[in-house]
Amino acid sequence: MLKYNRDGLIPVVVQDYESKEVLMLAYANEEAIKKTLESGYAHYFSRSRKKLWMKGEESGNFQKIVEIRKDCDGDAILYIVKQRGFACHTGNFSCFFSRIDEIDESDGKMKMMKLMKSGESDEK
Amino acid sequence: MLKYNRDGLIPVVVQDYESKEVLMLAYANEEAIKKTLESGYAHYFSRSRKKLWMKGEESGNFQKIVEIRKDCDGDAILYIVKQRGFACHTGNFSCFFSRIDEIDESDGKMKMMKLMKSGESDEK
Repeated sequence: MLKYNRDGLIPVVVQDYESKEVLMLAYANEEAIKKTLESGYAHYFSRSRKKLWMKGEESGNFQKIVEIRKDCDGDAILYIVKQRGFACHTGNFSCFFSRIDEIDESDGKMKMMKLMKSGESDEK
Repeated sequence: MLKYNRDGLIPVVVQDYESKEVLMLAYANEEAIKKTLESGYAHYFSRSRKKLWMKGEESGNFQKIVEIRKDCDGDAILYIVKQRGFACHTGNFSCFFSRIDEIDESDGKMKMMKLMKSGESDEK
């Protein structure tokens, strides 16, 4: 029913229930989804640490599940959550806090913004 | 600045600007992002067809870019778009139209919903 990739993972889009902000993109294996369903709290598989983790287990920033959806071809899922605190380890509510497009004043066209180097994630 | 996976791709979460609904998860390579910036319309890389595609090139359901963000560790991006028509090839506005969790009446716990087999995507 769900299609996992060659590493046994499926990408999980995480959206805040109230603000509807997209909070993060993480990955789950079958066990993480099982634990999420059992506990009602978002669990993922950390690709860097190669282990299951519950969001908030260290930070306290738990994600209570409101609903879980899959996409039309079953190779991505969506957790809609009540976010406690903030989702990003940087202290931002969402991990998607950096805009990367800007309009070039000279010709009015969209281009890639020049960005500062961002912090590194410890959890994804 | 952006981190592509071993296939040279980066996952793209796509969100509707007005409703804030998560529309789909797709993948882009560097060229797709360049074309997206140049044209102002969402471009992706099709993993099944192994080629660049502009969303709507066949269906007319174009996605006009409002803004593009990256996440904290630069391995996922977010297109915020004005969706023309619908995002899903099934005719649904969003690809994430199938809820997969439900509450078990007997014990009040969350479990996986039994689902019908869904249609297959031709574009992702």
